[in-house]
Amino acid sequence: MAELRWDPLRGEWVAVASARQDRTFLPPRELCPLCPTVLGGPLTEAPEPYQIAVLQNRFPALRQDPGAPGIEDAELWPVRPGFGICEVVLYTANHDSALSRLPREHLEQVVQVWIDRYRVLGAKQSIDYVYIFENRGEAVGVTLLHPHGQIYAMPFVPPIPARELANGAHHRQRTGRCLICDVVAEERRQAVRVVFDNGRFAVYCPFASRFPYEAHVTATRHLGSLLEFSMDDCRAFAGALGALVRAYDRLWNEPMPYMMVMHQAPTDGQVSPDAHFHVEFYPLARSPEKLKFLASSETGAGLFVTDLHPEDTASALRTALDPVFPTG
Amino acid sequence: MAELRWDPLRGEWVAVASARQDRTFLPPRELCPLCPTVLGGPLTEAPEPYQIAVLQNRFPALRQDPGAPGIEDAELWPVRPGFGICEVVLYTANHDSALSRLPREHLEQVVQVWIDRYRVLGAKQSIDYVYIFENRGEAVGVTLLHPHGQIYAMPFVPPIPARELANGAHHRQRTGRCLICDVVAEERRQAVRVVFDNGRFAVYCPFASRFPYEAHVTATRHLGSLLEFSMDDCRAFAGALGALVRAYDRLWNEPMPYMMVMHQAPTDGQVSPDAHFHVEFYPLARSPEKLKFLASSETGAGLFVTDLHPEDTASALRTALDPVFPTG
Repeated sequence: MAELRWDPLRGEWVAVASARQDRTFLPPRELCPLCPTVLGGPLTEAPEPYQIAVLQNRFPALRQDPGAPGIEDAELWPVRPGFGICEVVLYTANHDSALSRLPREHLEQVVQVWIDRYRVLGAKQSIDYVYIFENRGEAVGVTLLHPHGQIYAMPFVPPIPARELANGAHHRQRTGRCLICDVVAEERRQAVRVVFDNGRFAVYCPFASRFPYEAHVTATRHLGSLLEFSMDDCRAFAGALGALVRAYDRLWNEPMPYMMVMHQAPTDGQVSPDAHFHVEFYPLARSPEKLKFLASSETGAGLFVTDLHPEDTASALRTALDPVFPTG
Repeated sequence: MAELRWDPLRGEWVAVASARQDRTFLPPRELCPLCPTVLGGPLTEAPEPYQIAVLQNRFPALRQDPGAPGIEDAELWPVRPGFGICEVVLYTANHDSALSRLPREHLEQVVQVWIDRYRVLGAKQSIDYVYIFENRGEAVGVTLLHPHGQIYAMPFVPPIPARELANGAHHRQRTGRCLICDVVAEERRQAVRVVFDNGRFAVYCPFASRFPYEAHVTATRHLGSLLEFSMDDCRAFAGALGALVRAYDRLWNEPMPYMMVMHQAPTDGQVSPDAHFHVEFYPLARSPEKLKFLASSETGAGLFVTDLHPEDTASALRTALDPVFPTG
């Protein structure tokens, strides 16, 4: 049902999950499986009324019961069961809402749910990384429009976070300091790419942005993961996150399609001094009409090509911030 | 005009090329800039009649005259001029043709052009990698429908080929052998993922395919680059390539959107014993109606998730091969 296959050329695991072929594809809103069940309506995945809910993903990439792989492996390419836990986080029962439309207190509760899931999933012996993310918009390939994010709890540290940690370790070896602490400090010093900064979290379009209007929300102190957040950190994080997603939607007065991904400490039982909590947003729109495509340069060579300067996108996002900001 | 910015988190260069914002977007066919100029028609980029032509890319990601970077760098993130050479290879003057529709002799000439450009561009002191590729189909983001491929001649070895070479070196250290030689031998032994094999080139859906119907066209002998091809290799390569792209288009009787990328030896003046010529095809369609999207799992974690088994896609592609094959 679900396998992890080793790619010896790239040195990476690839997940094969055949059950995902049949997943629900953009159902009409009256058949949304993530809305609460209403009297007389079809039974949904969320039978009870809810404010925020966490569900098992019905079409998971990794499974708690993956079964034995049904394929011959080889010394060159091991295969293992596609074990993992995939969850769906329903941000709200309101089908027409979005992360950018949640009141601040509600967004703080979403942050609390993320903390809770990171703790519970990360505590499992078999889970080495808790990957929290959101795909938003049909351009990104979402199949359900109800406002939701996802969590993949994985049995290994995936390649991109692993690379960041390795580069962090290399930087620490050279300088004795945390790479991302240094990045935040330098972005604050140069200031030109900072969208805003509420003291605890800085939001900036990184110097080498890969995506149009890419922005990172980074803890200004060295917080390794959501588990190290104080209540004040939670509030400040929800404030920063909300302000950024509202700026995205205000930029062209339409919902910005994006990926939102969280990078933080692995849960593999090792100490990770170089993990530094940050959220990366990869918007897909270069303009209201034009999308960024990941084509051969990005996918086959790993060279990302962008036609926007992060200094300009940061400036545009600053003008799209809430009229009164920060509020607290 | 064009910069290379260093991303310290990923340890990779990112190209910023602002002139690309204005590139021609899906013009009507009578205004195709890649068709030969016709009497009474607008002047195109290809004023002379041609069979196959190589043009400078008018909206290049990397430039021969990049100018000085217009931005403050830092010790954390160097910036350098976005130097490089971007070319467009017009496969044919026929606007409605495709790689899959070229007669075999014509396709052999395209291979000769690739060899020639690899030689000429790779001989330049400043060029460390000649990256030959094709983006095909609007789903991949092509902006001009005229049948063409591209070449990015880069001043460094890009991340994905570099990773393959590093994994190859590691494998050689352990075993004394070429990784890709071993991969081809194992795919031939297991046979179940082989689409076909003409002796000099094997076409297979790799064990850990990332994309639906992904297939690699790999030299069965240890050929480092196009420069090592004999005339027989050219013919066999054109035969294998043509058969695969025709199978793609025959699968659902419509043009398959894909990326085609060539991985081979860098041109950085170093000896690359682990470079082994192969072409990777990344089709985007999971079915005639459904596309594969690169979303948060792939883009932010590096975990590719696929819902098709390469054993099944290889079987489907075998049934879509030319009725009589091989022909020579």
